[in-house]
Amino acid sequence: MHYPEPIAKLIDGFMRLPGIGPKTASRLAFYVLDMKEDDVLDFAKALVNAKRNLTYCSVCHNITDQDPCQICEDKSRDQSMVCVVQESRDVMAMEKMREYPGQYHVLHGAISPMEGIGPEDIKVPELIKRLQDDTIQEVIIATNPTIEGEATAMYISRLVKPTGIKVTRIAHGLPVGGDLEYADEVTLSRAIEGRREL
Amino acid sequence: MHYPEPIAKLIDGFMRLPGIGPKTASRLAFYVLDMKEDDVLDFAKALVNAKRNLTYCSVCHNITDQDPCQICEDKSRDQSMVCVVQESRDVMAMEKMREYPGQYHVLHGAISPMEGIGPEDIKVPELIKRLQDDTIQEVIIATNPTIEGEATAMYISRLVKPTGIKVTRIAHGLPVGGDLEYADEVTLSRAIEGRREL
Repeated sequence: MHYPEPIAKLIDGFMRLPGIGPKTASRLAFYVLDMKEDDVLDFAKALVNAKRNLTYCSVCHNITDQDPCQICEDKSRDQSMVCVVQESRDVMAMEKMREYPGQYHVLHGAISPMEGIGPEDIKVPELIKRLQDDTIQEVIIATNPTIEGEATAMYISRLVKPTGIKVTRIAHGLPVGGDLEYADEVTLSRAIEGRREL
Repeated sequence: MHYPEPIAKLIDGFMRLPGIGPKTASRLAFYVLDMKEDDVLDFAKALVNAKRNLTYCSVCHNITDQDPCQICEDKSRDQSMVCVVQESRDVMAMEKMREYPGQYHVLHGAISPMEGIGPEDIKVPELIKRLQDDTIQEVIIATNPTIEGEATAMYISRLVKPTGIKVTRIAHGLPVGGDLEYADEVTLSRAIEGRREL
């Protein structure tokens, strides 16, 4: 005997999500059966709406429900600096900090010759185009500290530097609250490299 | 700046599910945005269908899309034994074994004086009613080996025994593949208690 079809389909739906295996999927599916019908309807609507109503900002390529997005529209923000990140999620992480006053540019990926992803496959040309009208004076590269992220950072910096625009990279080192003892060698070497006078 | 509303609602939807915190919820939500629209629609439909089309079997109270359920309908199964479990999920676990030939009875909970759940709040009266027509000759109690599960097992056995129907409890002991060294005292004491001659 198998699960009745409606629940088998729901389990299958949950299993398509990342990090959810058969056991978790069936636990979630049975939980849904015990939820109020209105809550389930709201959740189903939220799924469809998120997929249908969200688009990418034509300026910064961040995910948004209006174009240009809230950040690009906000004239009180510093128009002279742009922070380059890999994903929309990174914008949310930066915004949670509540300290960065400038603009963003979402690449939607990183250069990866291994996977055949070149600068044209991510939003690098769009970034270069944005830099042409002289409002942006600093490009802060906040791609991930991985091989792909570093390669992307290097590529962009080489492309932008000749134009005279300042290019910076966010600092890498020990995370605050981290323990020196448990830091890996690469992080530690970056922390030494990036040391500052007190 | 917050997430755009459609994605905030979706994150909120995921966060209502058990074991999913804000970080996982936002990871899942962003994953949904990258899914094909058809897949998202299918998932949303599966949610609503599971909630709307599933009902409980009027005989065994297992979750089903037809009444009586497949197991109760199946005349090739042994009609003389009924296995009493706490949840529909437990039926699925038993069925995966592919060895149990009989019927089921899903209690939808266990007796718990602490939480104010008495025998009338779970499907105990329905079980007693099922036992009245003489077809069932053995009640196998497979409630969980927890305080509530044991109390429920005791309660049902005291109720059923006077009628002359055989009442058994599934065995508790060391799980197969488990290590004696790491077994807790209660499990070990149960394993000794339930020892059998070789």
